[in-house]
Amino acid sequence: MAITVAVDAMGGDLAPGVVIAGSLQAVQRLGVEVVLVGPEEQVRAELANHGPLAPLRLSVVDAPDVITMDEPPLAALRRKPRASVKVAAELVASGDAQAMFSAGHTGAAFLAAHQTLGVLSGVERPALAVTLPTRRGASILVDAGANVDCRPQHLRQFGVMGAAYARLALQAEHPTVGLLSIGEEAGKGSDLYRDAHALLSDSGINFIGNIEAGDLFTGKADVIVCDGFTGNVALKVGEGLVEFVEHMLREELGPTFPDDPRRRDAFKRFRQRVDYAERGGAPLLGVKSLAIIGHGRSSAYAIQSGIGMAARLADQKMVEQLAAALAPEEPGAA
Amino acid sequence: MAITVAVDAMGGDLAPGVVIAGSLQAVQRLGVEVVLVGPEEQVRAELANHGPLAPLRLSVVDAPDVITMDEPPLAALRRKPRASVKVAAELVASGDAQAMFSAGHTGAAFLAAHQTLGVLSGVERPALAVTLPTRRGASILVDAGANVDCRPQHLRQFGVMGAAYARLALQAEHPTVGLLSIGEEAGKGSDLYRDAHALLSDSGINFIGNIEAGDLFTGKADVIVCDGFTGNVALKVGEGLVEFVEHMLREELGPTFPDDPRRRDAFKRFRQRVDYAERGGAPLLGVKSLAIIGHGRSSAYAIQSGIGMAARLADQKMVEQLAAALAPEEPGAA
Repeated sequence: MAITVAVDAMGGDLAPGVVIAGSLQAVQRLGVEVVLVGPEEQVRAELANHGPLAPLRLSVVDAPDVITMDEPPLAALRRKPRASVKVAAELVASGDAQAMFSAGHTGAAFLAAHQTLGVLSGVERPALAVTLPTRRGASILVDAGANVDCRPQHLRQFGVMGAAYARLALQAEHPTVGLLSIGEEAGKGSDLYRDAHALLSDSGINFIGNIEAGDLFTGKADVIVCDGFTGNVALKVGEGLVEFVEHMLREELGPTFPDDPRRRDAFKRFRQRVDYAERGGAPLLGVKSLAIIGHGRSSAYAIQSGIGMAARLADQKMVEQLAAALAPEEPGAA
Repeated sequence: MAITVAVDAMGGDLAPGVVIAGSLQAVQRLGVEVVLVGPEEQVRAELANHGPLAPLRLSVVDAPDVITMDEPPLAALRRKPRASVKVAAELVASGDAQAMFSAGHTGAAFLAAHQTLGVLSGVERPALAVTLPTRRGASILVDAGANVDCRPQHLRQFGVMGAAYARLALQAEHPTVGLLSIGEEAGKGSDLYRDAHALLSDSGINFIGNIEAGDLFTGKADVIVCDGFTGNVALKVGEGLVEFVEHMLREELGPTFPDDPRRRDAFKRFRQRVDYAERGGAPLLGVKSLAIIGHGRSSAYAIQSGIGMAARLADQKMVEQLAAALAPEEPGAA
């Protein structure tokens, strides 16, 4: 059975053009069924640029409103009940789609999914799980920005959910889980992190203690747990630094190897390996159905990858796996 | 008058060898007077490897104890009143030196300086100010790790002190000050950051609002304010990523330009531009005398630079400048 993904056609800095191009690629190349959610006339006009669609498994659901990047998400969702991201979540809640994907306003996508889909038993705060490239392959950072003010038990839940997700995403049987902190010893870090360390030690996962931010890219832990403020800063530092490093290396290498196409290719491959915007999306762990959030700067290829990730995780029954991992925490819960 | 710097001979991953080599360079090349503080016999034995010292402005003060990286600093300083870092601070307090420098345990150096030198009026928490390379030159990040649990008024003080320091360090007449957060709008960020935004807006400095972590290296703000946990994570992500990026670019460029010495030179210049460990040290803003903290991985060149920075900031009367910048905040204070 093909998986149907409800895609927020208006989500992303280059929406709807890039979102629609990426959705078409996902349908054609990955065999996913896509429902494009957005102002119908605008979406169909954009689709018309891509030729006849009759044989494709692609449909359009009208959602006249759009939430822009500068709107406070809670108020915006209340004011715009037919916003594209909200309608996409409702298609998942009603069973018309198995997953939602949005590369728009992260806070709005988070809230729309949280409110519409509900959370799994044992979860207080759904969290965003981003895949980072490392020397040894990849690691999962959770939370990457959904929850800016966290309490210790939230970080413990991020660890449990992150481990369950890593078993699918990294094919790691007993994924190691580290707590991001500013020193390796258990006593290092802020009050929040010291308390979270104690809870994670006692959570039944393969917790390896604190890891320093310098080890984010060494693959020291399969899963790295942190609050969403710190996680978002860490990701953005990474993105900014990659651009800066490229800029400087071009300056340094430039006089030596000017205009060498092989050098340009090397940089292109490099960027593909490190650029989060190229890597698709990040699942929201802890909601009752699949919700994938993409980077605002997503290219068409990244949109395709994000939709592909949604279909793959639906196929792998990620939500059921997370529910099972969380179950022992509340034995009486359904 | 030559400036005298009290150097913790035992501070740093490669102490005392590298510290002593760097101190000798500072004396010979920069005309600084250095007091090496550490177990006298060990320090003199190491010095003997460098030839006769009689004509040099270099002396040794005995401090038999050493604080190691894994010791909790508060307890360690209580248990080891004659630790090298503590005795170095005392030489500054007594006026025998005008500044202290340590590349050892950051927490111990921070506490030794705080306890021994005291804090300026209007300062609740001294903060570490690190200079970051940017596309346009350099920016100051404060706090880089001295205070893991902060309150909004601490961030305001970091902004006021950071601006005063940037006038000296960056020669910026009206330095711009940004608050590190996860969105540019005033409402973005955690509770701490939203409250700090309001206080910084009203602090009389050139506050330009929130800046995202992706702009740490673009030079968007001369001074970037954050809590020490976030600042330390941001710095360490940067360090880790630079190593990762080098590793990957070598892989990508390797087959194309194998073993080309010009490529090696380009990477070497690149590293010198970005590597914090090569850039000397970070002053502790808010203590009553000069204290410079170096990176644990400091090379001899970095030690020399850190001592040079101490002498330069003593010459520029940094502490007096900070005191003047803070003065209006408590009109009645001395």
